[in-house]
Amino acid sequence: MITIKQSHEVAPRIYHDGETVKHVEKRVLVGPADRAPNFSMRKFTVGAGGCSPYHTHPWEHEVYVLSGRGEVRFADGSQPVRPGDVAFVPPNDEHQFVNTGTDAFEFLCMVPLEGEDG
Amino acid sequence: MITIKQSHEVAPRIYHDGETVKHVEKRVLVGPADRAPNFSMRKFTVGAGGCSPYHTHPWEHEVYVLSGRGEVRFADGSQPVRPGDVAFVPPNDEHQFVNTGTDAFEFLCMVPLEGEDG
Repeated sequence: MITIKQSHEVAPRIYHDGETVKHVEKRVLVGPADRAPNFSMRKFTVGAGGCSPYHTHPWEHEVYVLSGRGEVRFADGSQPVRPGDVAFVPPNDEHQFVNTGTDAFEFLCMVPLEGEDG
Repeated sequence: MITIKQSHEVAPRIYHDGETVKHVEKRVLVGPADRAPNFSMRKFTVGAGGCSPYHTHPWEHEVYVLSGRGEVRFADGSQPVRPGDVAFVPPNDEHQFVNTGTDAFEFLCMVPLEGEDG
């Protein structure tokens, strides 16, 4: 059966240790609980001054920027992104998403199920 | 290497036969050309009066509504959707996306690579 939901009604999980990850909310919009067979859709809201961890893992990210201003940092530099921009992070590439603005920086990030921790 | 692009710079493919599909533009934002290993991210822009085909296939859709007004039609009804709404269409479920507004109806639609025709 087709499932339709409003993304703001999905409860977030908070990620914040004040050092490696700051002011991140993650909402799993479609994932294992929906019986998604292959990949998961998550929405990340990074508050002002916030960032995801600088890390790497053996699965890819497919990212679509929804709102705010941010940048993607990687092994040999960084690049600013804005709404409507798309980032493809291949497996095993180091990466980090940083809010460089004053409003929330929001993006969708899709991963194969092996990269979904719930 | 991380790839970053602006979605409006991706060339669209047009789908319109005036009957089963109307005023649809499809942009493959991340897909086989990017060496995506598992799934593809596409952006659909459905013009006023437009719709995708009513159909089914053996792969799922994960959809995020970006702008405009529309509805999802399925075997036993329909449901309106608006920006920020998410739809999960399981494999083999009949479905159609219809623009019910006066502006463009835009959404992202992710599929496993088996469902990507380029």
